[in-house]
Amino acid sequence: MSDSPDERRYHVDGELVPAEEATVNVRDRGFMYGDGAFETLRAYGGEVLAWDAHADRLERTCERLGFARAIPPRDDLRDRIAETLAANDLADAYVKLSISRGVQAGKLTPDPAVDPTIVVMVDSLPRGGIDGDPVWDSPATVRTAETRKIPDDALPAAVKTHNYLNGILARLELQQGIDGDPADEALLFDTDEYLAEGATSNVFFVAGGVLYTPTADQSILPGVTRSMVLDLAREEGLPVETGRYEREELLGADEAFLTNTTWELRPIEAVDGESIGAGPVTRLLARLYDRRVERSCYE
Amino acid sequence: MSDSPDERRYHVDGELVPAEEATVNVRDRGFMYGDGAFETLRAYGGEVLAWDAHADRLERTCERLGFARAIPPRDDLRDRIAETLAANDLADAYVKLSISRGVQAGKLTPDPAVDPTIVVMVDSLPRGGIDGDPVWDSPATVRTAETRKIPDDALPAAVKTHNYLNGILARLELQQGIDGDPADEALLFDTDEYLAEGATSNVFFVAGGVLYTPTADQSILPGVTRSMVLDLAREEGLPVETGRYEREELLGADEAFLTNTTWELRPIEAVDGESIGAGPVTRLLARLYDRRVERSCYE
Repeated sequence: MSDSPDERRYHVDGELVPAEEATVNVRDRGFMYGDGAFETLRAYGGEVLAWDAHADRLERTCERLGFARAIPPRDDLRDRIAETLAANDLADAYVKLSISRGVQAGKLTPDPAVDPTIVVMVDSLPRGGIDGDPVWDSPATVRTAETRKIPDDALPAAVKTHNYLNGILARLELQQGIDGDPADEALLFDTDEYLAEGATSNVFFVAGGVLYTPTADQSILPGVTRSMVLDLAREEGLPVETGRYEREELLGADEAFLTNTTWELRPIEAVDGESIGAGPVTRLLARLYDRRVERSCYE
Repeated sequence: MSDSPDERRYHVDGELVPAEEATVNVRDRGFMYGDGAFETLRAYGGEVLAWDAHADRLERTCERLGFARAIPPRDDLRDRIAETLAANDLADAYVKLSISRGVQAGKLTPDPAVDPTIVVMVDSLPRGGIDGDPVWDSPATVRTAETRKIPDDALPAAVKTHNYLNGILARLELQQGIDGDPADEALLFDTDEYLAEGATSNVFFVAGGVLYTPTADQSILPGVTRSMVLDLAREEGLPVETGRYEREELLGADEAFLTNTTWELRPIEAVDGESIGAGPVTRLLARLYDRRVERSCYE
């Protein structure tokens, strides 16, 4: 099996098809309006990590979009992922599961009768866990974006949808007026100027031995990895605080890191050119996360 | 030629294909992220109304999304529309022109090298102009939504993208807890609680002989029909004011109407159950609009 995406097989509406033929109709509301839910998952040794947490959030997203009753049971979704991994002979993989509202009559108002479009895309990702390597080559350089997070009362941040231009605009800022390499991640603040999250990651920092991360009461995506890291920190007895933080608190931190399903924990090397870096708490949590992956997927 | 969408032919990436086979790859960023621009247009007698205004806005949207240099000249786009209308034997038609960023490597950050996906969809719409009928059956019932417009610093309202969940969530509210028919349009307010626009329309009202509409300095889409109506009103010497308005000012108006390319001018029958309705100014502007359509497209 090749590593080229073009030779992969994806799962579209119940069928495994070559990636090149994996299509949706142009009238699919996923294409027309970004009217769909998705989850990014990781499989380690053939096992999807934290499936229930991802399935919970996917169901919440579909509920908020008003088509939760149209989606199949989570075991069916999990089977589609397993079939796609098997068809591509992948055990350590990136998995993207999307459910759009599908094709409907040409009006913006959704029809309550939904025939969703369900897509599973996979790609290889190296083994994680204790003996594995991280996906990233180096700690992340981060730049604060002018683009603000969309407030919850306009588009709920807690649901993960195909409306992703907010993060894309933030990422595009990284390419503007840069000498040398653009930063790895754009950091978004909310409309009240509090630290929110990266375009595809949650942010943590450590100061005076306390682990801080923006509260889920803000307009942020409650990341599955974020939750796992908070759980691991509390189990380890580390002092943890969630709240609203200003840019200066992050810049003055002893350590900082980003989390998402793909990156796991990725240290922040610098924010807007000011160094922060990893440290003992980041390294401890990364080790605990590796152990958790090991226990969940490889044992 | 049938009126069923399934027997239509759409234009996808330079080819006319049956609507059922009009597809984009699941890795197209239009599907994955709603990462694309679109325009809704109307053809009258085979002629697209206000093509330059729509092409201008489409180019501004692509510019803001960072792929303006990758899109073909507007004459090429106009040819695609003409070919699609001809292939479907349509003269009076709804036209949707979409340009997505296309398929790229599986990262959120856009690659500057863009091979866009260009789609033209059409459907029949009855003749407009002086001898034509409006698309809508009756004046619009409108309900104010809890969903707020996305602020400009999170996602610029002036660009028309495939990220349309903000309007969809507002429309979904219309289906909740309703006795009888849901309202025709959801009215969104901005995060400062000022009147912004409908989910797919701009809003106007008349009080004391003055025509009012929310200013384009707010987070609203500067509609092509909105601009045409403002121009017609000024040419006619009507007093016109654009600004920030509260809900009560709309509710206390003598007349009110919505505008978009498809509806043209559609009177507002009631907002949240309180009657407003059309009146002499609305009727005058609708007549002037019909004449403009007549002059532009049928003469």
